[in-house]
Amino acid sequence: MTKKAVVLYSGGLDSTTCLAIARSEGFAPYALSFDYGQRHILELERARAYAPQVGAVEHRVVRIDLRQFGGSALTSEVAVPKDRPDADDIPVTYVPARNTVFLSFALAWAEVLGAFDIYIGVNALDYSGYPDCRPEFIAAFEQVANLATRAGVERGAFRIHAPLQQMTKADIVRCGLEHKVDFGLTHSCYDPTTAGLACGRCDSCRLRLKGFAEAGSTDPIAYAD
Amino acid sequence: MTKKAVVLYSGGLDSTTCLAIARSEGFAPYALSFDYGQRHILELERARAYAPQVGAVEHRVVRIDLRQFGGSALTSEVAVPKDRPDADDIPVTYVPARNTVFLSFALAWAEVLGAFDIYIGVNALDYSGYPDCRPEFIAAFEQVANLATRAGVERGAFRIHAPLQQMTKADIVRCGLEHKVDFGLTHSCYDPTTAGLACGRCDSCRLRLKGFAEAGSTDPIAYAD
Repeated sequence: MTKKAVVLYSGGLDSTTCLAIARSEGFAPYALSFDYGQRHILELERARAYAPQVGAVEHRVVRIDLRQFGGSALTSEVAVPKDRPDADDIPVTYVPARNTVFLSFALAWAEVLGAFDIYIGVNALDYSGYPDCRPEFIAAFEQVANLATRAGVERGAFRIHAPLQQMTKADIVRCGLEHKVDFGLTHSCYDPTTAGLACGRCDSCRLRLKGFAEAGSTDPIAYAD
Repeated sequence: MTKKAVVLYSGGLDSTTCLAIARSEGFAPYALSFDYGQRHILELERARAYAPQVGAVEHRVVRIDLRQFGGSALTSEVAVPKDRPDADDIPVTYVPARNTVFLSFALAWAEVLGAFDIYIGVNALDYSGYPDCRPEFIAAFEQVANLATRAGVERGAFRIHAPLQQMTKADIVRCGLEHKVDFGLTHSCYDPTTAGLACGRCDSCRLRLKGFAEAGSTDPIAYAD
């Protein structure tokens, strides 16, 4: 029987490539998305539509209310910054403890599925300054996974895979293309137009466009400008 | 200004005592409960009613859907075991990754509140065999908290307090009484009657009754038998 893996899947370029990697490494991917009050809800609709096409065996969307805590431009009424100069500081689009919350749910589902592998498409290079994308965070969460669960206690075998961790955005684009990811079925913009076009100017769009440019490739999705 | 602490609060004997301890240690307690599809929903109604009376500055209930993953008698249609002999194995009332999920949300709220302290009423002695109640789990999660968050990165000061960790249930009862906890305003049963009486026979009731007996005290709540 094919081993199962839970893959955190937003429908974006990174998580879709991550799902393709999980498949190529021999896992049956169980895709997990979150409806967490994100303002870019389009992300979720596309994730739902594309999950089977990009190879997910099953796709669940968990609704969680991070918005009631506030604190981020992605979940509250703070404006998404545009044309932000590259900087090391943590931007307002940071969602408090987001990856910790996401990995916790992935762990819960993995335990019920009998899976010991969780894939997360975080990236330590072009990572927008989010602390919960760093390798030391992933390692610490793996430790938690093995201490927190019945499966971890009995078999101690949970692994958090972050295959994109040391890649640049250009590397991710190249890797996705090698794995035959249809990037036309992915979506990255934090602040799309009402017609569903990517804005081209938020941190997420700028990183994506830079990635395609540096990979010598063209982004197949449509942009507003 | 009084320092804030997020206290995981179910309205039970342990978490209510834990909240009282947080207060006595000088914190303003922000109580956090979860509507996670638990079958003992009465727990939540009482938590909501009693939170201000037991000293919470604010009380939030986060709705999360752990039930869609299944896997526990507390969230699905598996029967709650009664009169279970004491055993070291992990019972069916174990909810996959529950404390990891709960602590993740506590961390998110703490970060938004500007709090660096989280209280959780887990107990390593009379702990029903749940792996995510052990000290090594708490220590690993504290590590995650400091690596995952902007606040942790900038100040590295998150602390997960588990003051009941080394107490027996009798110790907790004694400690609660010293802190003037009104145990009549707490609720522990996994499977209360429709009239709201505790069953007296599930693991949670049995531990509670044993605690009061060993503390030489009488439980003020009403039981079915």
